[in-house]
Amino acid sequence: MSGFVSFVSSGPGDPELLTVKAARRLAEAEVVLFDDLSAGPILDLAAPEADLIGVGKRAGRPSPRQDHLSRLLVDHARTGARVVRLKSGDAGVFGRLEEELTALRDAAIPFEIIPGVTAASAAASAAGIPLTRRGTARRVQFVTGHDVAGALPEDLNMAALADPSATTVVYMGRRTFPVLADRLKAAGLAGDTPVLLAEAVSTPDQALSRHTLNSLAQTAPDTDSSAPALILYGPLADGDEAAGGKTSGED
Amino acid sequence: MSGFVSFVSSGPGDPELLTVKAARRLAEAEVVLFDDLSAGPILDLAAPEADLIGVGKRAGRPSPRQDHLSRLLVDHARTGARVVRLKSGDAGVFGRLEEELTALRDAAIPFEIIPGVTAASAAASAAGIPLTRRGTARRVQFVTGHDVAGALPEDLNMAALADPSATTVVYMGRRTFPVLADRLKAAGLAGDTPVLLAEAVSTPDQALSRHTLNSLAQTAPDTDSSAPALILYGPLADGDEAAGGKTSGED
Repeated sequence: MSGFVSFVSSGPGDPELLTVKAARRLAEAEVVLFDDLSAGPILDLAAPEADLIGVGKRAGRPSPRQDHLSRLLVDHARTGARVVRLKSGDAGVFGRLEEELTALRDAAIPFEIIPGVTAASAAASAAGIPLTRRGTARRVQFVTGHDVAGALPEDLNMAALADPSATTVVYMGRRTFPVLADRLKAAGLAGDTPVLLAEAVSTPDQALSRHTLNSLAQTAPDTDSSAPALILYGPLADGDEAAGGKTSGED
Repeated sequence: MSGFVSFVSSGPGDPELLTVKAARRLAEAEVVLFDDLSAGPILDLAAPEADLIGVGKRAGRPSPRQDHLSRLLVDHARTGARVVRLKSGDAGVFGRLEEELTALRDAAIPFEIIPGVTAASAAASAAGIPLTRRGTARRVQFVTGHDVAGALPEDLNMAALADPSATTVVYMGRRTFPVLADRLKAAGLAGDTPVLLAEAVSTPDQALSRHTLNSLAQTAPDTDSSAPALILYGPLADGDEAAGGKTSGED
C-alpha cells in the first residue's frame, strides 16, 4: 500500500494566494512536511488532525540533510498516507525539488506537483507593475543570488543579466547584491537602473521600496531585516505602485 | 462615485488553479471583462447576475482596439461597479497590462492586481520537472515568440536565449519556432537540446510532448492545433514526467 505525495506550492505568503487546488490538498492531507516557520498562517489550512512536520532551516535547529528529508517523505508515503510536501512560492522556481522527486521515483511512489504563484509575480502585482512590457521589457528572468555556500554563483550569464531591456528578479539575493551590482555595471548595465526591493511580499509585513543599482548596493546588506527579500531590476522597476500598494521611495 | 477594478489572474486554464483570492473577486464582481472563449469554465465562478463582457480576439469577431478596451474599463468602473478584468496566466507575464493601468491611473480609479500561476509553472508541474535546478539550470527566463505583427521579435538577446544552462519558456511561439530554432543554433545552442511542447496546459485537452530543437523546428508549424502552446527548452526539458502526467515522446 503506497500513499501519494502532493508537492503543494504555497505561494508568496498570503494564504489567499494559494490556488484553490492547493488549499484543498492541504485540507485533505494526513501528513504535511513544511519548510519554515513562515508557513504559519498557511498551515492553518490543514486539518486539525493532520501531522505537521517541520523540516526547514528556520525553526531554530540545524537543517536536516536532504537525504534524510527525502527518506522522511518516502517513509510517510509508504504508510499509505496522503502526504503534502509544502513548498513556498512556485515549487518549480528555486524550490530544490530534484532530490525529492528522484527519491519518490526510485521508490515508485506516485506524486503530483501543484503549481503556484511565484514571489516575482506577487511582488510585481503589489507594486502595480507588469513583469513584461511590449518593446521595453520583452523578457523576464529569475535568478538566485546565492549558491550552496551562500555566495553569489560564479557562473552567471552576465550578458543575460545586464540586458537593459529585460526584467530581472533576483531571489534570495539581498546579501550578495553589492557583488552582483558591481558585476552588472562591469557588464554595461547603468548604475541608475531602477530597482524594486520587495520584502515579505503579500504578508502583513510587506515592504516595497524603490532604489537604483548604485543606491541599493550601498544599503542592501546593512539592513537587519530577516524578511525574505526579492530584488527586481530593469526598466519597469520604477513604475507607479498600485492604488493599494504601500511603497516608499528612497532615491 | 468611482468603482474599483481588480485585474484578476486566472491561471493556466483549470479553474482550480485560480488563487483563493482570485476566485473570490470573481464571485463578487458585478462586471467581468474577459479576453477569450477559453475562459469558459472560469467564468462559471462569476455570480449569475454579473455582466460578462467578452473583449478578446478569439470570439469570432475583430479584436477591439486597446483604447476602446481601456475606455470600456474606465466607463464600467465609473458606474461604481466592482469590475474584474480577467487575464489568463499571471497578469504580469505577457498580459499587456500597461495601457489599461495607465488609463485607470489617468482616470484616478483605484485598482489592484491579483497575481496568478503563469503557464510556465503549470507546464513544468504537469511534466514533473522543476524550472530551475542547482548547477544545471540556475536561471529561468520567459520570452514571447511573436511581436505585434505576429513575427519573431527582431531584437532578441540571443546570448541570453542560447544559454545551455538556463530553462527558457517561449510563450505564443509555436508558429515562429523554426525561425527561433535557427537563430538559437546560430548562437551556439545544440540542435539536440531537449524541448517540451505543452499544449492547453491544465485543461482536459492538455498534451505534453518531448522533442529536440531540431525535431520541433520541423513539425511545430505544421500542426493544425489551435490550442495555446508553450515551448520549454533547456537541460530540464527531458526530465521524467510526474506520475499522473500524460506525456508522449516523439524522438
